[in-house]
Amino acid sequence: MVDEALVARTPDEIRALSYEWRAAGKTVGLVPTMGALHEGHLSLVRKARSECGKVIVSVFVNPTQFGAGEDFDTYPRNLENDRELLSEAGCDAIFAPGVAEMYGEGSTDLSSGERTFVEAGRLGDVFEGKDRPGHFRGVATVVAMLMGAAVPHRAYFGEKDFQQLKVIGRMARELHMGVEIVGCPTVRESDGLAMSSRNANLGSEEREAATVLHRSLEAGAKLAADGEKDVSTILRRMRGVLDGEPLVEPKYVAVVDAETLEALESLGERSARILIAARVGSVRLIDNIALPFVRSE
Amino acid sequence: MVDEALVARTPDEIRALSYEWRAAGKTVGLVPTMGALHEGHLSLVRKARSECGKVIVSVFVNPTQFGAGEDFDTYPRNLENDRELLSEAGCDAIFAPGVAEMYGEGSTDLSSGERTFVEAGRLGDVFEGKDRPGHFRGVATVVAMLMGAAVPHRAYFGEKDFQQLKVIGRMARELHMGVEIVGCPTVRESDGLAMSSRNANLGSEEREAATVLHRSLEAGAKLAADGEKDVSTILRRMRGVLDGEPLVEPKYVAVVDAETLEALESLGERSARILIAARVGSVRLIDNIALPFVRSE
Repeated sequence: MVDEALVARTPDEIRALSYEWRAAGKTVGLVPTMGALHEGHLSLVRKARSECGKVIVSVFVNPTQFGAGEDFDTYPRNLENDRELLSEAGCDAIFAPGVAEMYGEGSTDLSSGERTFVEAGRLGDVFEGKDRPGHFRGVATVVAMLMGAAVPHRAYFGEKDFQQLKVIGRMARELHMGVEIVGCPTVRESDGLAMSSRNANLGSEEREAATVLHRSLEAGAKLAADGEKDVSTILRRMRGVLDGEPLVEPKYVAVVDAETLEALESLGERSARILIAARVGSVRLIDNIALPFVRSE
Repeated sequence: MVDEALVARTPDEIRALSYEWRAAGKTVGLVPTMGALHEGHLSLVRKARSECGKVIVSVFVNPTQFGAGEDFDTYPRNLENDRELLSEAGCDAIFAPGVAEMYGEGSTDLSSGERTFVEAGRLGDVFEGKDRPGHFRGVATVVAMLMGAAVPHRAYFGEKDFQQLKVIGRMARELHMGVEIVGCPTVRESDGLAMSSRNANLGSEEREAATVLHRSLEAGAKLAADGEKDVSTILRRMRGVLDGEPLVEPKYVAVVDAETLEALESLGERSARILIAARVGSVRLIDNIALPFVRSE
């Protein structure tokens, strides 16, 4: 089945294919990935498969969303394996451009003034954006490019990267991209660790310790489900759990409004989310969990 | 013929129309305007008409490209007259959204952090961008929105706004928008004044004096055609012409590389352009002219 999925290398090729499908009345779904595919990605592909006549998966490790000193060079890459997994999952085309096909021959530094970029505003300045300056500028810019190239009706993103999902949803809506952004549940290992391509770079002790992200999220969500509304109480409980794993260095833990990502002091009528980021050895991991609505009495 | 041109008010309406036409095998052309149409706009519509099966003209006075204290409120508006002119010129649909249809109910301040925007880089920081901070951010953002809404194969812009043409060309290319940006020659009054909706706001003496922009450009271009390569000599001749009109206050006059807009010191093998901006009474006018290639001996 491997050969049945077409591989397009340039934006023009994938756009031509997408318009051909659209003209034939097909709904086109796009699953943007950076490759190194795991069950989380494949769940997005299956979701797209169930909702769209044609499914495009893009595989592109985007340099502009990595900062200086981050893991662009060591980010896992394995296109042959990805191709095989995608054909099995039922993908109609893979869009796998090189950096030059996406960014041309010039600078890939979006702060250089040498190129057009898309900026996400304050939604991209907090949390991941604060720890990784320019990250969401890179994400918004490459996703705008992918939308321009693949012209999908729908695009599928995992909730694991919750802030990214919100940034992209806002961008698509505000720039009238005509694409429905679909968020899909995080897929987890049996011990609760959120699937991530970066997990492959964890040593075995680190891998074990990394489960504390999800354990702390569960502890926080359980408190909220039991009726606790005070955010500082929830965060204290979570820190207690996190302190049990000295290999894990938390970067931020926050309870936020699920739409605006504004930090909350107490839970109320608004939909809320707990966001967490931590460094485990040399690997930076993120995770999040939805909080149940807490009705005021 | 007026009623034959459909008027779409929302991005979703015009997008549905555009995809319908695309599916029927039509080439879709877009002519973005801020209304107050004149012969310059109509020449773009006729060009689009000659190259495309279906022509959309957008009429939207975009608040985000006007700075504080600029002429957003007094910018001429006359949709009824525009509609009539467009039906006569042969337009298939008018896209005339309100501010809320384009920007929603929130802030239209692109620097507020409250919304996504598109930034043009250094190309948007010089000349008009220097005199009008944020102008090209507003232009790039609204044109990205219009592309997302109207999904054209081609979009037509006048060379009169030369820097804008370059900013938009770069954006469309770099974000892989899949739209061909077509630049069209400036249309002039019989006395050489470049057509502009803002000309309507000139008093009669100012209107007379305003011809000096084009006269100075012609003087500069003639010197270059006669073999002058030294930019400071060309600019001196132009300033001599401009000094003859005390009602006209030049803002900048520059000889630039026609692609990068970098100021040149001498003419050479690269395609060059003279850019000029001036204030005439309360009205800000811009114009430009191509310089002939000067072959080195």
